[in-house]
Amino acid sequence: MRITRPAAELLEPFLGRYIRCLDHGFVILRDYMGNEQSIVESARISYGKGTRSVNEDKSLLRYLLRHRHTTPFEMCEIKVHMKLPIFVARQLIRHRTANVNEMSARYSVLDNEFYVPAPEQLAAQSTTNKQGRGEILDAEQAEWVLRAIKNESAGNYQAYKCFLNEDKDEEDPYPGLARELSRMALSLNFYTQWVWKIDLHNLMHFLTLRLDEHAQYEIRVYAQALRTLVQAWVPNVYDAFVDYVLGAHTFSRQEMHVIRQFISEFPLAQKEIEAYIDNRLIGTSAREKEAFLNALGVR
Amino acid sequence: MRITRPAAELLEPFLGRYIRCLDHGFVILRDYMGNEQSIVESARISYGKGTRSVNEDKSLLRYLLRHRHTTPFEMCEIKVHMKLPIFVARQLIRHRTANVNEMSARYSVLDNEFYVPAPEQLAAQSTTNKQGRGEILDAEQAEWVLRAIKNESAGNYQAYKCFLNEDKDEEDPYPGLARELSRMALSLNFYTQWVWKIDLHNLMHFLTLRLDEHAQYEIRVYAQALRTLVQAWVPNVYDAFVDYVLGAHTFSRQEMHVIRQFISEFPLAQKEIEAYIDNRLIGTSAREKEAFLNALGVR
Amino acid sequence: MRITRPAAELLEPFLGRYIRCLDHGFVILRDYMGNEQSIVESARISYGKGTRSVNEDKSLLRYLLRHRHTTPFEMCEIKVHMKLPIFVARQLIRHRTANVNEMSARYSVLDNEFYVPAPEQLAAQSTTNKQGRGEILDAEQAEWVLRAIKNESAGNYQAYKCFLNEDKDEEDPYPGLARELSRMALSLNFYTQWVWKIDLHNLMHFLTLRLDEHAQYEIRVYAQALRTLVQAWVPNVYDAFVDYVLGAHTFSRQEMHVIRQFISEFPLAQKEIEAYIDNRLIGTSAREKEAFLNALGVR
Amino acid sequence: MRITRPAAELLEPFLGRYIRCLDHGFVILRDYMGNEQSIVESARISYGKGTRSVNEDKSLLRYLLRHRHTTPFEMCEIKVHMKLPIFVARQLIRHRTANVNEMSARYSVLDNEFYVPAPEQLAAQSTTNKQGRGEILDAEQAEWVLRAIKNESAGNYQAYKCFLNEDKDEEDPYPGLARELSRMALSLNFYTQWVWKIDLHNLMHFLTLRLDEHAQYEIRVYAQALRTLVQAWVPNVYDAFVDYVLGAHTFSRQEMHVIRQFISEFPLAQKEIEAYIDNRLIGTSAREKEAFLNALGVR
Repeated sequence: MRITRPAAELLEPFLGRYIRCLDHGFVILRDYMGNEQSIVESARISYGKGTRSVNEDKSLLRYLLRHRHTTPFEMCEIKVHMKLPIFVARQLIRHRTANVNEMSARYSVLDNEFYVPAPEQLAAQSTTNKQGRGEILDAEQAEWVLRAIKNESAGNYQAYKCFLNEDKDEEDPYPGLARELSRMALSLNFYTQWVWKIDLHNLMHFLTLRLDEHAQYEIRVYAQALRTLVQAWVPNVYDAFVDYVLGAHTFSRQEMHVIRQFISEFPLAQKEIEAYIDNRLIGTSAREKEAFLNALGVR
Repeated sequence: MRITRPAAELLEPFLGRYIRCLDHGFVILRDYMGNEQSIVESARISYGKGTRSVNEDKSLLRYLLRHRHTTPFEMCEIKVHMKLPIFVARQLIRHRTANVNEMSARYSVLDNEFYVPAPEQLAAQSTTNKQGRGEILDAEQAEWVLRAIKNESAGNYQAYKCFLNEDKDEEDPYPGLARELSRMALSLNFYTQWVWKIDLHNLMHFLTLRLDEHAQYEIRVYAQALRTLVQAWVPNVYDAFVDYVLGAHTFSRQEMHVIRQFISEFPLAQKEIEAYIDNRLIGTSAREKEAFLNALGVR
Repeated sequence: MRITRPAAELLEPFLGRYIRCLDHGFVILRDYMGNEQSIVESARISYGKGTRSVNEDKSLLRYLLRHRHTTPFEMCEIKVHMKLPIFVARQLIRHRTANVNEMSARYSVLDNEFYVPAPEQLAAQSTTNKQGRGEILDAEQAEWVLRAIKNESAGNYQAYKCFLNEDKDEEDPYPGLARELSRMALSLNFYTQWVWKIDLHNLMHFLTLRLDEHAQYEIRVYAQALRTLVQAWVPNVYDAFVDYVLGAHTFSRQEMHVIRQFISEFPLAQKEIEAYIDNRLIGTSAREKEAFLNALGVR
Repeated sequence: MRITRPAAELLEPFLGRYIRCLDHGFVILRDYMGNEQSIVESARISYGKGTRSVNEDKSLLRYLLRHRHTTPFEMCEIKVHMKLPIFVARQLIRHRTANVNEMSARYSVLDNEFYVPAPEQLAAQSTTNKQGRGEILDAEQAEWVLRAIKNESAGNYQAYKCFLNEDKDEEDPYPGLARELSRMALSLNFYTQWVWKIDLHNLMHFLTLRLDEHAQYEIRVYAQALRTLVQAWVPNVYDAFVDYVLGAHTFSRQEMHVIRQFISEFPLAQKEIEAYIDNRLIGTSAREKEAFLNALGVR
């Protein structure tokens, strides 16, 4: 039988399909490598052998994620074509483990496309969070701001085109300014494009940071698009990721101390606590339950 | 006034000093870059300006670590000279963010030094943990094993030297085998040496993994030596690292659900719970307390 | 029409196929991502737009490699399963940009397979090159060395199995030594296995270093196996790689000075030199020829 | 005797000193780690032992660079504070091996500082090089462009401040737009700041790419400032870098073929060629000369 590359059935339909982001942006799946089975196989190279049931595979995937065994997740790669505002690109590029080919404004002339937020996204500076948004602007204020953003951006593009003077007629003595200089006229809300490739481990790390409510709304939109792809690609991994990372909570040493005291003063015998947990902690292994009881100091 | 490089007073005495590890190994501090003040300054570039009190600096360091703002910690580097058994080196090298210059057995002849565990380190395979140690061997068994390790290793070194035949007399027609081949005779407990350089963020990640009780004892010994250096280098960062990472605990989404239920059924009013926490959670900011109450679902 | 992942026709037959290396080793292609068209597309995102002819694509690939535009080559990934002696694995692991899942001797018991060089690979230490091989051993010496390697390795494996004592009968009071310790008995010629994944740019860098005649023979064998895959995967890139990297030569500033002097004293007019070059430098662009003439100082 | 950190005497005076770049930018040395002696020591760990003369150290440094033995150069780090236009920062950030802490425009309000090129830097798009500059604009055109850049940039900053409305009086109902959104008004010539840390190997790679005449002028200015630091830090390494990298030239396989033919048809005996080279190739080792003769095909 001919051997072919591992495929991810639910991800296939996304190939070449636009996932729209903001007003002019998108994420398009270009290629991917590996699936859940590839992760399992790579882990089994490290930890043992033999074929296992689908159920055991799912448990292994959860185990790997729970214990932060990250290398098997590095064995999967995804490649997308993105269109995104420059200020969003400036945040995304900080994820240094991605491979990137960005459209160069030294070679190419950028399109007349800039990001204008939806009115419900226009918010004042947060008064409690130095880097966040607070109250939404009222309708009138929003209208003024939107008009100003549009005017300013349109003006910037016009300046850019004037500097370039690419469609000049022959009489015009002004040769235009080099592209690498003209681009200085563009503001940070103009759209750029790139091909972006990253492995699954680093993509999940990216999602952890950028799906967070403290991440800027505009990058969160791209994180959500990428999450859609992860969910279709490796659904069991995604579920485990929600359980053990996105929905998890880390308590400090001091906080753990307080929690353990709490529990110890809870008017229940250890047996009852175990029964309590047994009734509520559904779908976890015996070992995971034990670790939980240990963490709470009741075993 | 002449400007000099930032220094870490408590780390200085470690320069050039041996920290002994296992029977023949060591860690020697060769160089370092940056101190707590450097981390604070790098963070302030990102987040704001102005001189602050020592107290505020300490709070900022804790804040950075608590929120996993990792880049300021990348601004400090440490460089050590290490001597370590090859099987430990094989684990350490997996931390790909370190820079390494290892002694080459293609160029050099390795010394006759191999690791022989202390008797109390000789343990059977764990029956519950597929990768751990279980019961300690009894004295007689340990004695046999130690003798066997010594004999085997000495035999391996002898074979190595025979293959090399470097001290041959002129009559001997056997020219010796190339070093790059002769080294095949050496077993994994022979010592190698290297210079190893890593930034503080990645060093703390290394410590998180290798100080863990599930890490192999022999690499833990090296992690402990490196921890000693971190503690002297950036004491407040180290304390925060203990509180927010080493001593912290992460609960899964499902576990958090159970904990919140627990707390909600605790026979205390919210006010009393807040007082309870207030009395026990010492030395944390109001904001941290609030985040704790939120996580427990009591606010 | 349904969009599918880019494929590399000539590479497909290698999926799952063993490429034998040394006496017990192998390289098996497990998966790959991207093809020459993917490189071209990523480059075109950066440098321009529009569909081009196959011929222009080939020129672009050569242009990218010649000018060390490396990011488009990072857009292709390859994943192989390898079996290799530990001392070779120790060299390979230094290529930090690869992702690796290695069989763990803390979990698993290694097989009784060790590398024994072919007689024609047994050579003395080079007298001119501190890290190389010199004269081949004569038949009698080789026979002695081979017998010794086999005996030593077999002895090491026996010690390993004795330490483990995994097939002990019930009467035997010795519980065996933990796997993570027993492995210390194994010598560096024992085989390990891993899954190894790397992007095309870094793979070519690896090949540059490890196909070199100064690389140790045993790692060169693995580099050759990987080269076979590259050749089938991206044939035009491989040709360009041979022309611009493997077969290229770099002259120092001082050497360039001497070469330019040479040429200037060559008893030929510039025109004749140009004709000379024109007749001999086949298949290069006009721009490349001009750069050559410039480098030689004849234009 | 107390052991202290390795220092670089000629680099020390640069600590805290501004190196001005463009109209408002700068590079300030904040810290460094290691010196030429550190490189030598790291290399000696790999390749051998014993103290050597200064002369041998210099030869070793040249040898390492000539043979692209890169790891010893990774043992030195440098950290600078930079102020640079956003479009330059966007190029610099692509060097993923650097550590960066950038001023965040989500937290802070950027200053009213934008890059205005000097008139002699205003050039038309190159007609031969798709990404370069061609003819300098004439005085009148340049004046118009400069005035336009200033007006546009000033207008952008005004819009930014209007959006922020940070100094509003109490009557004003408009609360201002969040900083993370307001920054969209700024154009790519506004200045940002960051702390940037990189190791010597990767810094030299950066210099190779960004000192090149094809690099954009504005980033070349920063590369030149960093070169100044490298020259003071590791002068012998810098000289070798000029000889073996910056001033070197790589010929393709085909070009090497032509060069060898050339030489073979040169009307001189091999001995005479050797004498010719001996007279002109000053200060290189016998081994380097031999490699040169080999490359030219005359030995």
